[in-house]
Amino acid sequence: MNDLKLEQLPLRDELRGKSAYGAPQLEVPVALNTNENPYPPSQELIDDLVEAVTKVASALNRYPERDAVELRDALAEYVSGQTGVAVTRDNVWAANGSNEILQQLLQAFGGPGRSAMGFVPSYSMHPILSSGTQTEFIAVERGADFRIDVDRAVEAIGEHRPDVVFVTSPNNPTGDVTALEDIARIIEAAPGIVIVDEAYGEFSPSASACTLLETYPAKLVVSRTMSKAFDFAGGRLGYFVAAPAFIEAVMLVRLPYHLSVLSQAAAIVALRHAGETLGNVDKLASERERVQAELVAMGYDVVPSESNFLFFGHFDDSHTAWQQFLDRGVLIRDVGVSGRLRVTIGLDSENDAFLAAAKEVING
Amino acid sequence: MNDLKLEQLPLRDELRGKSAYGAPQLEVPVALNTNENPYPPSQELIDDLVEAVTKVASALNRYPERDAVELRDALAEYVSGQTGVAVTRDNVWAANGSNEILQQLLQAFGGPGRSAMGFVPSYSMHPILSSGTQTEFIAVERGADFRIDVDRAVEAIGEHRPDVVFVTSPNNPTGDVTALEDIARIIEAAPGIVIVDEAYGEFSPSASACTLLETYPAKLVVSRTMSKAFDFAGGRLGYFVAAPAFIEAVMLVRLPYHLSVLSQAAAIVALRHAGETLGNVDKLASERERVQAELVAMGYDVVPSESNFLFFGHFDDSHTAWQQFLDRGVLIRDVGVSGRLRVTIGLDSENDAFLAAAKEVING
Repeated sequence: MNDLKLEQLPLRDELRGKSAYGAPQLEVPVALNTNENPYPPSQELIDDLVEAVTKVASALNRYPERDAVELRDALAEYVSGQTGVAVTRDNVWAANGSNEILQQLLQAFGGPGRSAMGFVPSYSMHPILSSGTQTEFIAVERGADFRIDVDRAVEAIGEHRPDVVFVTSPNNPTGDVTALEDIARIIEAAPGIVIVDEAYGEFSPSASACTLLETYPAKLVVSRTMSKAFDFAGGRLGYFVAAPAFIEAVMLVRLPYHLSVLSQAAAIVALRHAGETLGNVDKLASERERVQAELVAMGYDVVPSESNFLFFGHFDDSHTAWQQFLDRGVLIRDVGVSGRLRVTIGLDSENDAFLAAAKEVING
Repeated sequence: MNDLKLEQLPLRDELRGKSAYGAPQLEVPVALNTNENPYPPSQELIDDLVEAVTKVASALNRYPERDAVELRDALAEYVSGQTGVAVTRDNVWAANGSNEILQQLLQAFGGPGRSAMGFVPSYSMHPILSSGTQTEFIAVERGADFRIDVDRAVEAIGEHRPDVVFVTSPNNPTGDVTALEDIARIIEAAPGIVIVDEAYGEFSPSASACTLLETYPAKLVVSRTMSKAFDFAGGRLGYFVAAPAFIEAVMLVRLPYHLSVLSQAAAIVALRHAGETLGNVDKLASERERVQAELVAMGYDVVPSESNFLFFGHFDDSHTAWQQFLDRGVLIRDVGVSGRLRVTIGLDSENDAFLAAAKEVING
């Protein structure tokens, strides 16, 4: 059975010839390619986690609490503090990473015969998740400065009437934030729902789109993750904040018991340590400013970022440049945008190694 | 925003008016409703788990290994030993519970314009997962004894030409096994793929459908779970065994980094303790024989089971009977089949409590 080829299986037509998503997982001295937080969890957090796991382990033969109520309480408390918008568990839903969050929202509000719109370049999973849920994806180009051209966005919404609109803010891979008044214009124009993807929200000093929830309860969903600011990419915990009716909606499509006992317990522990984690976020933000200034001084063009990564160029051939960084032991990300590469802000020493490589690359 | 009603959201039409899946999660003295393994993990397993979590916790800021290679090695070793069919990691794929496994298979091989067939009553998630992936679900009734009528199955397959056929063996909620030669006839008839759902495989002395993989590599997928035999419902780990091309196929639709660092580490630990866990399976199988004999002696009709539950009746009104058990502190499952209820085999004392209630219920 091991010689059978994928082509011999009755795969759906639209999947034929496709290749699996994923950044290369290479062993390199300096990995700055997946926007992880470089600071490992503190010993206090690890001790707490071990204690929590010890406590729940003896019930691993039982299914998890299906609606993750305690975790949603903890998330609501964190969101209320971090965004200044008071929410409760009824406003929060959690899943295995924001990918599963977005997949559930697309199953409920997108799907066959419906469409989703995004402003590209943006998070590459939005079109992939749309396609995985049979939602037509409509890509609208950002302006020349990589910011959303709001007039063009409103016009495109009017023309295509998408059921779901994605606004990533701060945007991945460009790092820029869309102003709240621009998000409001997009929501006003949208006939369906608007998902503001704030995966990198904690890295930005700008206000969260959660502040718009009271004004647009039937349209706005703010999706977030513990993968980036939170030292918790390995824990896989995404969530969204919205009117309670949205939680009722995804409960119709979520897989029962989707969040394991361990995922729930570990995320609760990580949230208890939010204070120390967010201290690292400040360090990363100031490193971002330093790296950006040095790149500009070398002659690179850098999009001003409110995230934990920088989008920089210009390269005549970005794939060749990506390989030149890799040859110097620095793995960054080629996101497929001509002339540009994305680098994650790491530890100070990693940023130094990246900057040394960047100097060699630009000097040929 | 909290008064907004679900009806005011632009939900997909087919979801309107539906209610969320799920057995009631009630606090009761004796819970025999979700086919969990009643034996908690051993102290040795818990100690190992805590050690494993301590080891991986310091890397929780990094994304998990995306393809779960080490876990798939461990699963392959377990499957090879348990089924007698030698497989490697290339034949095994893992996800968050068998629900996610089945969802991924339906995304790749079902979907809009395609259909799936099941022989009902069977696992209630099969139609729900089909609907969640926009796959038309065709239900074919089992025979009067709740076994698959293979002639009728082959005829229905010829008539409807389903892209995916589900065979649950041992079947949930009835507990019976479909013989390998009958599964082979179904595979021969099927124009697409056949998923043999062996969630309860370890409870049966019958050979696994894995033994048919060499004969039908392009058609057969065997899905399994660590939720039932393995003391690991809370860990959420499902997997399938098939030709490597099937793993390539689901890699096109899986969410990247779907399995957390903790899920992978915990499942590897649980597999290392497979020996002791499967000892409990033998205890449950002999309890099943005892409970079945006592139910029959009381005058109940019981479907012969090779699983960790019994499907019994007859009740004039199964919902009323379900409530009568609950009133006696025993939560069992009303699966919506007229005249029948399903009870999970628990600890000896739980089974005694169930039998005492059953005696009162049948005597009115």
